[in-house]
Amino acid sequence: MQTIDIFDTTLRDGAQGRGISFSLQDKLAVVRALDELGVRWIEAGNPGSNPKDADFFREVKKLPVETAAVCAFGATVKKGLKPRDDDALQKLLSAETETVVIFGKSSIFHVKEILGVSPEENLAMITETVRYLRDKGRNVIYDAEHFFDGRRENAEYALASVKAALDAGASTAALCDTNGGTFPEDISWGVTALEALCPDAKIGIHAHNDAGLAIACSLAAVAAGCTHVQGTLTGLGERCGNTALAALIPSLELKLGYRCLPEGRLQKIREISRTVAEIANTALPENTPYVGSAAFSHKAGMHADGILKARASFEHIDPLLVGNGREFLVSEIGGRAAIAERLRKLDKTITKTSPLVEAVSKRLKELEADGSQFEGADASFELLALREMGRAVSTFTIAAYRVTSEHPPAAAIECSYAWVKVLVNGQYEIAGAEGDGPVNALDLALRRALSSFYPALASVRLSDYKVRVINGKDATAARVRVLIESTDGRRTWTTLGVSSDIIDASRFALTDAIDYTLTVLP
Amino acid sequence: MQTIDIFDTTLRDGAQGRGISFSLQDKLAVVRALDELGVRWIEAGNPGSNPKDADFFREVKKLPVETAAVCAFGATVKKGLKPRDDDALQKLLSAETETVVIFGKSSIFHVKEILGVSPEENLAMITETVRYLRDKGRNVIYDAEHFFDGRRENAEYALASVKAALDAGASTAALCDTNGGTFPEDISWGVTALEALCPDAKIGIHAHNDAGLAIACSLAAVAAGCTHVQGTLTGLGERCGNTALAALIPSLELKLGYRCLPEGRLQKIREISRTVAEIANTALPENTPYVGSAAFSHKAGMHADGILKARASFEHIDPLLVGNGREFLVSEIGGRAAIAERLRKLDKTITKTSPLVEAVSKRLKELEADGSQFEGADASFELLALREMGRAVSTFTIAAYRVTSEHPPAAAIECSYAWVKVLVNGQYEIAGAEGDGPVNALDLALRRALSSFYPALASVRLSDYKVRVINGKDATAARVRVLIESTDGRRTWTTLGVSSDIIDASRFALTDAIDYTLTVLP
Repeated sequence: MQTIDIFDTTLRDGAQGRGISFSLQDKLAVVRALDELGVRWIEAGNPGSNPKDADFFREVKKLPVETAAVCAFGATVKKGLKPRDDDALQKLLSAETETVVIFGKSSIFHVKEILGVSPEENLAMITETVRYLRDKGRNVIYDAEHFFDGRRENAEYALASVKAALDAGASTAALCDTNGGTFPEDISWGVTALEALCPDAKIGIHAHNDAGLAIACSLAAVAAGCTHVQGTLTGLGERCGNTALAALIPSLELKLGYRCLPEGRLQKIREISRTVAEIANTALPENTPYVGSAAFSHKAGMHADGILKARASFEHIDPLLVGNGREFLVSEIGGRAAIAERLRKLDKTITKTSPLVEAVSKRLKELEADGSQFEGADASFELLALREMGRAVSTFTIAAYRVTSEHPPAAAIECSYAWVKVLVNGQYEIAGAEGDGPVNALDLALRRALSSFYPALASVRLSDYKVRVINGKDATAARVRVLIESTDGRRTWTTLGVSSDIIDASRFALTDAIDYTLTVLP
Repeated sequence: MQTIDIFDTTLRDGAQGRGISFSLQDKLAVVRALDELGVRWIEAGNPGSNPKDADFFREVKKLPVETAAVCAFGATVKKGLKPRDDDALQKLLSAETETVVIFGKSSIFHVKEILGVSPEENLAMITETVRYLRDKGRNVIYDAEHFFDGRRENAEYALASVKAALDAGASTAALCDTNGGTFPEDISWGVTALEALCPDAKIGIHAHNDAGLAIACSLAAVAAGCTHVQGTLTGLGERCGNTALAALIPSLELKLGYRCLPEGRLQKIREISRTVAEIANTALPENTPYVGSAAFSHKAGMHADGILKARASFEHIDPLLVGNGREFLVSEIGGRAAIAERLRKLDKTITKTSPLVEAVSKRLKELEADGSQFEGADASFELLALREMGRAVSTFTIAAYRVTSEHPPAAAIECSYAWVKVLVNGQYEIAGAEGDGPVNALDLALRRALSSFYPALASVRLSDYKVRVINGKDATAARVRVLIESTDGRRTWTTLGVSSDIIDASRFALTDAIDYTLTVLP
């Protein structure tokens, strides 16, 4: 089985994405996660340009990294200098990684206009840099920046620049589509031309997604003979991002028969992608191929129905292979089969023809016509089903509340304050609170009123709050749908409320959240 | 120049995406936006499966649609029925669109296992359905569901099923990669095989992004001869979504020389993509090729430096061609050209180097760091600029308000009521109102308090109201952004407010809305 070396640059090119910033601890956590996934290379920073990275390279040596090798990134020697006098190259060496990545210029335009040297000088700089690092005992991966733009300007020169690095001892030449606009057929051309010139070279690809083609370009490069693929696990990177390795590796392994990760690791790719996204403080887009949370979700009734008859009918792979799961969204365009599937979580004997499915489906349609939407609110859906099954899930009643928002705020209070009266097992309790907005005030007052009855609520908190206006064209009198996500630190669950009044909608969602916490969750 | 017919299915396949739900008004707004962009076809819903869609098709006929044709979607006749007895087909006809889209099965596996009919019966159902709709005077676009999976099982049958539709009078056959796992080279094969069988047919492609290859597959199909491309503008759709047309059309027009949109429309694609994303209540991912807000952002100092020496050094196209702007994340000069362009609406003499552009840019950066986003709020942006220009645009001040929401409602009042005190030219006025929710109550009280000073306000009303939680992970204490759309029946304008308190955010947006009405609009 042909092996493809996976090279992850989340910590270098990924960190150049808008809004991305890694602390030293974040970087170490990403290294651990990528090593657990089993990538071959982790490009972790540029010690010559960033002092934070120098500290990182000291720390990372203490980590027990198993499958991956951590490498540092830098540029060819500055014009007019010898490598031993080049500060950035010295810092690169002092990172003490076995492997270093050096980028150099393949484009005549860049050589002349951006670098300001002659084409011959550039070739000499490449040769000299790689040879110097080889002499210092380093393994060198050479990144040919703007290779594909370069070959459009002057193919012979672009190829010669890469050959210079390989001849000087680089072990791998990665061809970079730095601006990201190249099409797959041009990628193939470039790889094939280099293979003809340097038949024994190990060739890699570094694609960007500026035309939405990073994955297609990487696959084209592999088909043309590349055995080294650069990218970032979740697609972070400059502008539109780098090749999203999590969306590429499953295609290479499951559909094309390459080996990218050690045996048994592919099932971890979804979880590790979420971990890396979390560390980067980004949300993994739910529609990310293979690993997104919606990648195997089915909403149209016909699709859900088909899946239940035969898995392959609406799925291109079995989601378990990448550690992902199938999801049936319950909605007005979904069908009985999806509802039955979800209800089986509560009662294993339920089938598509059970009367309960009919009853839940009917209730769902009524509520959806009124503006509810249960596909994002699993916990409210379960409570609805349990109520239809006659199970008691109500733990309290809000007898009354009053929430007031004032401007300007009175002395010593927040803009919004709430008063609430609850009824639990025949007993009333009253509490008050102030908050950052009316819903926050109501939530705090409610939890305070319930705390003596239900101490378990202390370990649960709201983790996300969403508001959606349903039929916005009636303006401020429109109906609103509120989604509240709660967490106990381990699990999360989402509840729903709909009303023409946002406070009232929040009341429903808060009530469901607390009922679910106390009756279904334990 | 070869023309490619662009077919947008945001309102049908896009609505099958997780969390997506369009109201009737939303659907009409999407049709207006897509027509302004200039797509050829808008697939707008399935009247046979969804009663809400039937209302929509009645309403959409009143819209002055210019370049696009709106079409309705349905399936081949149900087994055992004649088309005239098939309720779904009758509903499809009663949508009264000139063009209908019919999907049928190309896969033997699906025919037998999911539909439960014989291969011959399926062919007869396709023929009969298309012929019936042609007899009723409809133009028929045929969607060959699972065509590429079908051809892997039995290529001859897959092709025969499409030929049946074409022979019965379908004007176009769109080959669907329904499960989204097909690679571009297999797409080419399928298109080429159908061309050999039906040399005069108009062939289309309908790709999904389950392997991250929807755009590559669509390009491969066009290269093989397809002249009709289906997708959704922003990539919404089942699971990982459909081909994102906003990321494909620029490649087809700017790099491959096809014509997809009427002359001059490509520059609108970024703005219209944001509009459609906004209507769908989704955020357009910032790294979306061509149209994302980060698509031309440069963070690495070297990249920004290169760009300033020569635009093409780190950009694959000129962002202005798609109405997008370059952004330098580490420098102060981000977005100047775009700001200057917008300010020229207020003062024709403004250029990129005007001091006002600098001042507005600075103010914008401060406010955006605080959670504002002016892209959807033109009126608030204009007011901000006018304030920087020293023009008086403030027509009143809210001296104080108090808004209360109660449950259960007291006798004879609504759940929410408001009291407001305004200051106009040194004179105070107080008014009260009750409403459907606290914002509605505040809006009504405010208009009442101002009515004696500004009778012109009587002809203006709020037409849309949107709430977005900005940093949802702090739960109910998160910051909220409120967008309010106002209308005088002819024009609409949108204003913005941001606060940790939804009532307070609404106050800012309402104030801007009234200031704009009274000072800028006349």
